[in-house]
Amino acid sequence: MKKQQFAVIGLGRFGGALATELMDLGYEVLGIDRDEEVVNDMSELLTHAVVADATDEEVLRSLGIRNFDCGIVAIGNDIQMSILAAILLKDLGVKTVVAKAITTLHGRALEKIGVDRVIFPERDMGIRVAHQLVTPNLLDYIELSKDYSIVEMTVPEQLHGKTLAELNPRARFGCSIVALHKPNGVIVAPTALDHLQKGDIMVIIGANEKIDGFEAEVVNKN
Amino acid sequence: MKKQQFAVIGLGRFGGALATELMDLGYEVLGIDRDEEVVNDMSELLTHAVVADATDEEVLRSLGIRNFDCGIVAIGNDIQMSILAAILLKDLGVKTVVAKAITTLHGRALEKIGVDRVIFPERDMGIRVAHQLVTPNLLDYIELSKDYSIVEMTVPEQLHGKTLAELNPRARFGCSIVALHKPNGVIVAPTALDHLQKGDIMVIIGANEKIDGFEAEVVNKN
Amino acid sequence: MKKQQFAVIGLGRFGGALATELMDLGYEVLGIDRDEEVVNDMSELLTHAVVADATDEEVLRSLGIRNFDCGIVAIGNDIQMSILAAILLKDLGVKTVVAKAITTLHGRALEKIGVDRVIFPERDMGIRVAHQLVTPNLLDYIELSKDYSIVEMTVPEQLHGKTLAELNPRARFGCSIVALHKPNGVIVAPTALDHLQKGDIMVIIGANEKIDGFEAEVVNKN
Amino acid sequence: MKKQQFAVIGLGRFGGALATELMDLGYEVLGIDRDEEVVNDMSELLTHAVVADATDEEVLRSLGIRNFDCGIVAIGNDIQMSILAAILLKDLGVKTVVAKAITTLHGRALEKIGVDRVIFPERDMGIRVAHQLVTPNLLDYIELSKDYSIVEMTVPEQLHGKTLAELNPRARFGCSIVALHKPNGVIVAPTALDHLQKGDIMVIIGANEKIDGFEAEVVNKN
Amino acid sequence: MKKQQFAVIGLGRFGGALATELMDLGYEVLGIDRDEEVVNDMSELLTHAVVADATDEEVLRSLGIRNFDCGIVAIGNDIQMSILAAILLKDLGVKTVVAKAITTLHGRALEKIGVDRVIFPERDMGIRVAHQLVTPNLLDYIELSKDYSIVEMTVPEQLHGKTLAELNPRARFGCSIVALHKPNGVIVAPTALDHLQKGDIMVIIGANEKIDGFEAEVVNKN
Amino acid sequence: MKKQQFAVIGLGRFGGALATELMDLGYEVLGIDRDEEVVNDMSELLTHAVVADATDEEVLRSLGIRNFDCGIVAIGNDIQMSILAAILLKDLGVKTVVAKAITTLHGRALEKIGVDRVIFPERDMGIRVAHQLVTPNLLDYIELSKDYSIVEMTVPEQLHGKTLAELNPRARFGCSIVALHKPNGVIVAPTALDHLQKGDIMVIIGANEKIDGFEAEVVNKN
Amino acid sequence: MKKQQFAVIGLGRFGGALATELMDLGYEVLGIDRDEEVVNDMSELLTHAVVADATDEEVLRSLGIRNFDCGIVAIGNDIQMSILAAILLKDLGVKTVVAKAITTLHGRALEKIGVDRVIFPERDMGIRVAHQLVTPNLLDYIELSKDYSIVEMTVPEQLHGKTLAELNPRARFGCSIVALHKPNGVIVAPTALDHLQKGDIMVIIGANEKIDGFEAEVVNKN
Amino acid sequence: MKKQQFAVIGLGRFGGALATELMDLGYEVLGIDRDEEVVNDMSELLTHAVVADATDEEVLRSLGIRNFDCGIVAIGNDIQMSILAAILLKDLGVKTVVAKAITTLHGRALEKIGVDRVIFPERDMGIRVAHQLVTPNLLDYIELSKDYSIVEMTVPEQLHGKTLAELNPRARFGCSIVALHKPNGVIVAPTALDHLQKGDIMVIIGANEKIDGFEAEVVNKN
Repeated sequence: MKKQQFAVIGLGRFGGALATELMDLGYEVLGIDRDEEVVNDMSELLTHAVVADATDEEVLRSLGIRNFDCGIVAIGNDIQMSILAAILLKDLGVKTVVAKAITTLHGRALEKIGVDRVIFPERDMGIRVAHQLVTPNLLDYIELSKDYSIVEMTVPEQLHGKTLAELNPRARFGCSIVALHKPNGVIVAPTALDHLQKGDIMVIIGANEKIDGFEAEVVNKN
Repeated sequence: MKKQQFAVIGLGRFGGALATELMDLGYEVLGIDRDEEVVNDMSELLTHAVVADATDEEVLRSLGIRNFDCGIVAIGNDIQMSILAAILLKDLGVKTVVAKAITTLHGRALEKIGVDRVIFPERDMGIRVAHQLVTPNLLDYIELSKDYSIVEMTVPEQLHGKTLAELNPRARFGCSIVALHKPNGVIVAPTALDHLQKGDIMVIIGANEKIDGFEAEVVNKN
Repeated sequence: MKKQQFAVIGLGRFGGALATELMDLGYEVLGIDRDEEVVNDMSELLTHAVVADATDEEVLRSLGIRNFDCGIVAIGNDIQMSILAAILLKDLGVKTVVAKAITTLHGRALEKIGVDRVIFPERDMGIRVAHQLVTPNLLDYIELSKDYSIVEMTVPEQLHGKTLAELNPRARFGCSIVALHKPNGVIVAPTALDHLQKGDIMVIIGANEKIDGFEAEVVNKN
Repeated sequence: MKKQQFAVIGLGRFGGALATELMDLGYEVLGIDRDEEVVNDMSELLTHAVVADATDEEVLRSLGIRNFDCGIVAIGNDIQMSILAAILLKDLGVKTVVAKAITTLHGRALEKIGVDRVIFPERDMGIRVAHQLVTPNLLDYIELSKDYSIVEMTVPEQLHGKTLAELNPRARFGCSIVALHKPNGVIVAPTALDHLQKGDIMVIIGANEKIDGFEAEVVNKN
Repeated sequence: MKKQQFAVIGLGRFGGALATELMDLGYEVLGIDRDEEVVNDMSELLTHAVVADATDEEVLRSLGIRNFDCGIVAIGNDIQMSILAAILLKDLGVKTVVAKAITTLHGRALEKIGVDRVIFPERDMGIRVAHQLVTPNLLDYIELSKDYSIVEMTVPEQLHGKTLAELNPRARFGCSIVALHKPNGVIVAPTALDHLQKGDIMVIIGANEKIDGFEAEVVNKN
Repeated sequence: MKKQQFAVIGLGRFGGALATELMDLGYEVLGIDRDEEVVNDMSELLTHAVVADATDEEVLRSLGIRNFDCGIVAIGNDIQMSILAAILLKDLGVKTVVAKAITTLHGRALEKIGVDRVIFPERDMGIRVAHQLVTPNLLDYIELSKDYSIVEMTVPEQLHGKTLAELNPRARFGCSIVALHKPNGVIVAPTALDHLQKGDIMVIIGANEKIDGFEAEVVNKN
Repeated sequence: MKKQQFAVIGLGRFGGALATELMDLGYEVLGIDRDEEVVNDMSELLTHAVVADATDEEVLRSLGIRNFDCGIVAIGNDIQMSILAAILLKDLGVKTVVAKAITTLHGRALEKIGVDRVIFPERDMGIRVAHQLVTPNLLDYIELSKDYSIVEMTVPEQLHGKTLAELNPRARFGCSIVALHKPNGVIVAPTALDHLQKGDIMVIIGANEKIDGFEAEVVNKN
Repeated sequence: MKKQQFAVIGLGRFGGALATELMDLGYEVLGIDRDEEVVNDMSELLTHAVVADATDEEVLRSLGIRNFDCGIVAIGNDIQMSILAAILLKDLGVKTVVAKAITTLHGRALEKIGVDRVIFPERDMGIRVAHQLVTPNLLDYIELSKDYSIVEMTVPEQLHGKTLAELNPRARFGCSIVALHKPNGVIVAPTALDHLQKGDIMVIIGANEKIDGFEAEVVNKN
């Protein structure tokens, strides 16, 4: 399978991080920005980086934009430019168009004109950080459904030295530890004899209310 | 245990989403912004919302800021104001101060003045979206370590109807499916007899290279 | 049949003239503009005129916008605001949404989001004036098709006093005079005996090239 | 007869459309604008396009402006520049000077300084669109006098298949159908036996109140 | 004879000095300016002073502008506003309209729209000061024609104590001293016996070249 | 006597007119302005014209400013620059420094720093025009003292054909006609037999109240 | 002797510190600034603080400015305003006028208009800090003449425990220690038996080159 | 001992004076400013002067900033830039970092990030000038402690011709004259027989209240 090619329009903090991560993951990336200084800074990090107005159809055409598998409209604050660039990407035949939305209404506009995926980076990260703040041991989490999550959590002091049998989270709290990340490696599906130790990270799966109960009783109890 | 109280300075897209999510999670939140219109829009969503200059020590003092457990400096684009507000929060005795950084150097400044946690929302979300773009089935993921991840992935068409025994990811690819999210619930630690079906979501744990191999061979094979 | 109700967003030169003409034609018109002075000037000319931000969904809702039969987005120069207001009108259930486009790409955006009719007033009037300039006697015209037009033209001096029989446009030039506008009234389907006189206006129908020939030979011959 | 030569000052949406339409109609056009980018975009579409300040007499003189038959001042929003450019065109001996007015008072100023024809594109198009909106079948129209019009209208569903004899507009409504535009051509002065069919366009002449009655009874009756 | 009434539009340095001088000369003056502060400063110095937009016909009408004998458009730097205000004054029936021009082309525009007298204060004062600079004794002058002037000049040191008979300007230089301004009064048509003394001012009439010769020989000889 | 050399700083409307008039009078003029376009326009009209910052001592020194007999600071609207440039001219040894003042306080500042003559062109021209407006026949005037003037006036219709003996202004009004400007030349000290005729201009000397009485009785009587 | 009264115009960093220090020293201070917020912040710290334009003569008069003994023009960056305010203070009769200069030319202007003392705070502090930087033990200094200084210096480690007799600065270096500041007080004219100890500060007087030699040999020797 | 090297960031009034004084004192100075014109003006006065953005780590690194003994952040008004530049200097290994603070909070930020010395030039000079204003004879002073000072003061008229024995400040006022600066040199530790004469400057040491008493009784007594 041929590697996907990405065009990223707007190389600000979001677009720039996205583009360089795509490069790190081994893909070809064309970066487009109106700001010459920004393009210069990125030019050695991306396959190509060009100064261009992404609302100028001729320019996009001359860049061969229709050959790209995926176009990401990561324009910072200019809703008009974001909408018009997204339309051009769609019309020029880019298979998948992803766009960053600034406001809810902007997001609706992007959806209406046919953008395949709309992202709200600041809003989403705000929500994610809120969860981490209220659970100090929480490192990261995945919402499997509205009610069910996987959470990654440092082992709290009061559990240091305990075995999973002693903790017995499934029986006592209705949630399971599916992995233990220890300094020397990750134990998948740990057994009742595995010890929780200082510096370990546990991965817990369960209904949100069960995990909340576990945290309240065991993790935050001090 | 008494519920934590949060003060969020800067109610833009990141700060606003963070503050309302904290409210949804059941905490008390004081929102502060210089923009009257922004404060009006948030005033019914938060415990309190006030128009104030967060670099004015007297103002913060009169708001009783020292009684807050956690202060989040979510100021949008004004690095100077962000640094000065963070200093005041620390000096006034806020236990935990979290701040959003715009540039790497801004982040270093925040760390030097003693901010407990520095967040780069746009950069982090850019990285996260990059991962999702290159693995179309990828829904979310947690990096357990530099080499080890948990990924949440829709079951691709070519696996519909197969049992885990048939797929046998551990033996063939060296990674494990620790949970299956089916329409009627989540199966933790699914057995060899469980079927993968259209609409299911699987949670896989393993070394990154193993998961990549699994994806390349099984998920993206078409 | 109940009279239609119109909401006109943007009361500049185009929107203002459109709104007052609708009033003159006997319809109810709600005018919306962000500029208080503009709204004050129009308030006595329209059924209602309000100062409002047409991209604020709550505001449009509170104005009962969904009860209007037709919404016209006549915003002057702000493409972003034009697109967002048009989306809101569609989403709130306005039956027909008409919008003024500034650029071709803006027009494409409006079409993509579902606007029923897109208008380019400056461009269209530029074309119309071009036609009038090259045919000094031309007063107005309708393009029936790419090739066929109706034109309204003052009777040139060299035809004063002639009868239609003498002129005989159908035989000589392949186009017909379907009406004569004389000081005391309009003669529909004039006969061969009707005279062309100073001050008369003739309405001619025919293929464009035939009308051009007529003009070149008869009208502009001097 | 030698072809007329046109100078268009201001190549915005109105001036640009006017100038290119004049080119399409086969005339020579000199375009003048202060904005280099605008001039570059138009330079291949017009006979000549120059970057110049149209209020600099020396510049106009060096462009040989006095040899042009017609000068069109199509300057967008700068009333002062519009007035001063129009004065120069008149003083330099351009035979016909046409100018676009932004406000009524601007129009009066242009008339006072001797401009031959003053145009209000936005206002006129606003009025024209208003008429079309209130008569959905209306495609275009010509006002022959304050009371008498020619209108171009799609044949409404309820008239599909009828003959003109059946409809009998002259007898029933006091207005005449002077032409029928059918897919395969235009029938001038259609007879009583001609059928109205789906997709046909009819051209009606009559007093406004008669046409309104016709519309109300026949066209909009549903 | 009823006293004239003046309306001065624009109360800057030129308009303000003009308006207050008219008051000192015993006339009624209405002052109009857009700047509230300026109007406040002038309000006690003029019969009336109002904050108003002089390009708003309704406003001028409500001020009864048509009853004024003379309107002076003394607007500082806004050519557009100057032209439009002048048109309104003319159209509303002000008998005499005087306007200050900023550039030559502005002056032509004012003349074309019918302004009765166009003034260039900065240019005219520049010329006047130039004359005074090159003749240090020159106090003021009137150009009677292109070639003939009256000049007011301090008596130079070398003439102190001389009689007009000794000086004999008519015979020697071809110009006449028509008046002598002495500390205790003005001597009209001084005689040959009158003495020129320190502090006296002489008024000389003659052809410019004669006066120049007089100056070169007698006045500036040192 | 060697011709004076002038340096004019600021080539706007006042400074530009002053500088070109000095050239016309036969003197050498160096023009200085910060605006390159202004300098280009003047460069062919003056002995030298340079783009320079007149508050930069080194620049003025390198232009040899100390060799100029007279420096005129004619800077438009920048009081600070006007004051600083005037100080430099004085300090560098320019014999006579003349400066244009914008406000009274600006004028006081210029006097305090030693400017030899301060001019208020707009204010002075405002006063001059006021006098002309209230005496329609007045062409120009010189104020000899607070109470005594010379005025230049067109001969009003009611005096056409009269002799000076008939008019007898000295006896009847206490003022004298010292010169008559007739189409074919100027009559100095006209006699009682000279006739006043249409197109003649008379020069009158007298106390202001006497001249006012003359005007009221003879000139404006209609 | 009645206490002096001070008026400080401009309450920025320099003016504000000066005004509050004068208050601390027991004098009455009137503070004037155009910025309402600045005045509010200072209003409780000064005898009076008013929002006013210090270039408006009427305003200064109404504040009774002529009764103040000393006026300090501490305006931040507006040279024009600084000069005009200083003129008004002088003209209104303030005995002593002190003004802060921004540039050298500004300083010359202030001197020319009669300001009694001109201060360059940023420049002077730059020079002072330069001296402290190159002599790390230097705390403060007074330049008695171009060649002679008093310096205040911490006692360096290598002198801890020594007597003045041992150090013998007069004999060895040609400079004298006129005072020793010890934790429990200041010893004026210390004797040969006094010890230099950790934490002591010595005050040295001498020719600059002698003090430099002392520093180089004794203080910075490590 | 090798001479110290200084890097001065920001070459405005404070930084420029500091840098040139360091040069005068014989040290090497690298000046950095973003403003090309400022750098040009300083380039001949400093060892090196470069146009650079001091918040760009690469730029500072390429200038070899880590080899400098002392970095002075003298940036004018940009608090953000000041903080970020100071962080970089510290992180790159500059031994001593000194920074100018604009506000108190800015000063706290600089201290928190590890700046070795924070300077408030405008505030400190404001305080210093206040002291000089209230004691007209005061030339300069050093605060040895909160209560003890050295002051440099011109000898007031009433002491001219007196001996120190007659004045006897130690006995009468409790303060000592430690030096007398006479036109021909400085007398350290003057004796009772030394005379105070016109033009002499005396250096007095003592408790502040004693010096105040001395001033009140002896110096300001008139």
